[in-house]
Amino acid sequence: MLEFRHATEFDLPAIVAMLADDEFGRERERYKEPLPRAYHEAFRAIQRQEGNSVIVALEEGVIVGCLQLTLIPRLGRGGALRALIEGVRVHRSRRGRGIGQAIMHEAIGRAREAGCRLVQLTTDKRRGDAHRFYARLGFVASHVGMKLDIS
Amino acid sequence: MLEFRHATEFDLPAIVAMLADDEFGRERERYKEPLPRAYHEAFRAIQRQEGNSVIVALEEGVIVGCLQLTLIPRLGRGGALRALIEGVRVHRSRRGRGIGQAIMHEAIGRAREAGCRLVQLTTDKRRGDAHRFYARLGFVASHVGMKLDIS
Repeated sequence: MLEFRHATEFDLPAIVAMLADDEFGRERERYKEPLPRAYHEAFRAIQRQEGNSVIVALEEGVIVGCLQLTLIPRLGRGGALRALIEGVRVHRSRRGRGIGQAIMHEAIGRAREAGCRLVQLTTDKRRGDAHRFYARLGFVASHVGMKLDIS
Repeated sequence: MLEFRHATEFDLPAIVAMLADDEFGRERERYKEPLPRAYHEAFRAIQRQEGNSVIVALEEGVIVGCLQLTLIPRLGRGGALRALIEGVRVHRSRRGRGIGQAIMHEAIGRAREAGCRLVQLTTDKRRGDAHRFYARLGFVASHVGMKLDIS
């Protein structure tokens, strides 16, 4: 039995551990105890921004998955609200059991309830499994996702 | 001489006209006078969301370009703030004079000033010219942009 809820700051170590335990996240994240302050600051900024949230999936009270859902009002498509989903992760020990699909359905349901007409995401070109996963959920690879590093 | 500023609600007809005067926008937008209320509601929602804004470029007081810039706090990459740019348009009568590049530089500058470490966008696979335009600005087509219609 899976449960879903908004993440709280107490969930942050479990979430960042999942972000770091990833082919690309390994180099990009700094998971250690105590967690670098930047993660706490980012989490509080997410909480402050209307429409922005981190959702976690729990199995018997343990965090087994997460994603970030951001609702963004836009002018295009007749002023349609759209949802951006990113940072989708399932704990390594719980993969292949439908948790990813379930948390995506949860996020898509929340987006629909909020009035979104479109859900979008970008996924690294090298993540072939992820593309197939999102395609099975109905996502269409109609766009190119481009990034500019300004760090 | 170009000037840049945040759009006001008075600029909306000029902005929506540019969104509609586009290969794909033609079918998706409903530009007419008075403007459908949904555009006004969307614009006010953009103004209410911290970090979300529409930027316009003006030449001799006339709106000649626009884009939407959304600053999104994220947990990934060490809690890096990132910027999403979408809805980039230059008025048909002013193309080929560097206005697109100038408004993109303006948006990237604002993102950098706000502390963003990454700027991202998605662009329709069929917009080959747009891909080359963004590549010249330094954007890397590292991701697949996927969309799910839930309307």
